[in-house]
Amino acid sequence: PSNKKLLILPGDGIGPEVMREVRRVIDWMDRRRAVTFDIEERLVGGSAIDAEGTPCSDETVERAKAVDAVLFGSVGGPKWDGLAFEKRPELGVLRLRKDLGLFANLRPAVVLDPLVDASSLKPEVVRGVDIMVVRESTGGIYFGEPRGIETLPDGKRRGFDTDVYHEDEIARVARVAFDLARQRRRKVTSVEKANVMQSGRLWRAVVGEIHKAEYADVELENMYADNCAMQLCSRPKQFDVILGSNLFGDVLSDLAAALTGSLGMLPSATLGAVDPVTGKRHALYEPIHGSAPDIAGKGIANPLAQILSFAMLLRWSFGMDEDAALVESAVGKVLSGGLRTADIMQSGMARVGTSVMGEAVVREL
Amino acid sequence: PSNKKLLILPGDGIGPEVMREVRRVIDWMDRRRAVTFDIEERLVGGSAIDAEGTPCSDETVERAKAVDAVLFGSVGGPKWDGLAFEKRPELGVLRLRKDLGLFANLRPAVVLDPLVDASSLKPEVVRGVDIMVVRESTGGIYFGEPRGIETLPDGKRRGFDTDVYHEDEIARVARVAFDLARQRRRKVTSVEKANVMQSGRLWRAVVGEIHKAEYADVELENMYADNCAMQLCSRPKQFDVILGSNLFGDVLSDLAAALTGSLGMLPSATLGAVDPVTGKRHALYEPIHGSAPDIAGKGIANPLAQILSFAMLLRWSFGMDEDAALVESAVGKVLSGGLRTADIMQSGMARVGTSVMGEAVVREL
Ligand SMILES: CC(C)[C@H](C(=O)O)[C@@H](O)C(=O)O
Ligand SMILES: CC(C)[C@H](C(=O)O)[C@@H](O)C(=O)O
Repeated sequence: PSNKKLLILPGDGIGPEVMREVRRVIDWMDRRRAVTFDIEERLVGGSAIDAEGTPCSDETVERAKAVDAVLFGSVGGPKWDGLAFEKRPELGVLRLRKDLGLFANLRPAVVLDPLVDASSLKPEVVRGVDIMVVRESTGGIYFGEPRGIETLPDGKRRGFDTDVYHEDEIARVARVAFDLARQRRRKVTSVEKANVMQSGRLWRAVVGEIHKAEYADVELENMYADNCAMQLCSRPKQFDVILGSNLFGDVLSDLAAALTGSLGMLPSATLGAVDPVTGKRHALYEPIHGSAPDIAGKGIANPLAQILSFAMLLRWSFGMDEDAALVESAVGKVLSGGLRTADIMQSGMARVGTSVMGEAVVREL
Repeated sequence: PSNKKLLILPGDGIGPEVMREVRRVIDWMDRRRAVTFDIEERLVGGSAIDAEGTPCSDETVERAKAVDAVLFGSVGGPKWDGLAFEKRPELGVLRLRKDLGLFANLRPAVVLDPLVDASSLKPEVVRGVDIMVVRESTGGIYFGEPRGIETLPDGKRRGFDTDVYHEDEIARVARVAFDLARQRRRKVTSVEKANVMQSGRLWRAVVGEIHKAEYADVELENMYADNCAMQLCSRPKQFDVILGSNLFGDVLSDLAAALTGSLGMLPSATLGAVDPVTGKRHALYEPIHGSAPDIAGKGIANPLAQILSFAMLLRWSFGMDEDAALVESAVGKVLSGGLRTADIMQSGMARVGTSVMGEAVVREL
């Protein structure tokens, strides 16, 4: 058995079809690079609700903790939209983030040269954009207590949530952002609403303290979330690393992804703390795009984000930088060669489906 | 004395300079249209802190309640950045919203044909965009209790805020959005994170109930905030009215404004409830842009958003639709004539400063 243990959770919608293409890449590595992975596959999200009665079973959490890395697809679909809040497919991913302590969600938004024209923004505005959003992902308003919907004595309802951050939660994700910036262009834009939120005030204060004490070589800029949304849209090239809370990181990373125009290309990683003894960290890799129920089963989904998520996994969880680069450059070549799935189709290019795209990547490898 | 009482609050930064141009428009109306306004002017924001020790004095709130409409400039600047949370200039506008019960913040994002090229988005993506964001503005996380930064027994800090909505708060702002949609393209996109937030679940439920009971002739679409940010960037024309909480409305309306590329052109209105006896409602009008301290005092700020805010005031607070349309079309003509302030400058146009732009509007009138 290999020392590389992988849990694959394809999920719902297009998840299983794009994951199939990753399996081809893994098979290729097995044959040509003599790296074997011990792979388990399990259900998550809606398909897990149907088969196991819960979006993420205890056993799945246990297996996720036991392996070296989790490769996740996507969850959700109209079939499960009517479910109670405590039962919805999204809980699959939320539970994994929380139970594995995956506090740093890394979401790159990169505009690849052959795809510049896929953006809704002008080519001169987006060419060369290379942003890394670091989103806190186990705290904030996603998990804060108290939360609920209560019925008042007069029968009226009141819904409430708590956005809460402990300074250590802010500090550890800030360090991830600053460390990444050091490998990039040495700039972190920390985003909050310190002008109206108390957790935002603390966020700004703690990030500033960490910066001053440990990362004075990196430039730190503080920006309000509303302004950041504006700036992302009008001048995205000013950004290197963007750091934000669970909620602001969610909205702003989706915006950053959208402006590249090629959502079907974008991977992400969610990392836990490094274990001081083993040097290992829990990690989950998934595409930015969702389960796209409208095109599921049609064989037209873009498998590249899922394949690039696997490349990210090779690099971050196994230090296999060379293999990761091989996969990434194979993807680049396929695009330069003119193949496009429907979502990134441009005139003059050849439109292909999911499996032809996956095969093409393997061929380039 | 006129029956049209106006309180003007120029505020900080470019506020006073752009407000000066509105005064010219008012003078013109006085002479040519024989409409007189009783105008009071007071301080707000940083300038009020300096002169009166508080960003918005009790007297200013009293006067704002007494008049028919408030015309607001913008507040804030580096001079006041170091102030305590309870003292910052932003409290000026937050207090006015809260104390006057201005719960519906209307933020149009319109792409004017002569300014299509000012956008960072491709012309074919933004031409014809006409979005109205209706943002709840007296509730949610901006004001929810409990909130604070506490020091735990071990000396560590914890910051927290409460996002809370009562169903009546949701219902009244939803009605404003549906009413507006009826005068427009009959579509409301209601934005929340009902998949992770309890207040978001209640938001979606209440908006759905109001829709079903009172506005079945309007189309209602529910959208997650992250997806809405994406869609605004990639396909903005799909939107008519966007409805959101104080926080989501803040971020998404700024994004909608940014994609027009002409922030210096965009007015906004914040409205209170209609008094069942007098039929009147408190209202405050202000540009979307901020106080822009970097260009303050240079005479280059764009006065058009402030002038268009005054036009909005004429229409909404005084029912002076004809006069409002006059002002708006004068602005349109000045732009078609080729005048541009620095922020919307394009090649082939004539660059002008604040007062030349203001004069040009009066000349067109
Ligand atoms: C699935 C959902 C709960 C999730 C979130 O809001 O975090 C998604 O939007 C994401 O960003 O991964
Ligand atoms: C000034 C500030 C408190 C304010 C807000 O966040 O509401 C501003 O961004 C706005 O949108 O009017």
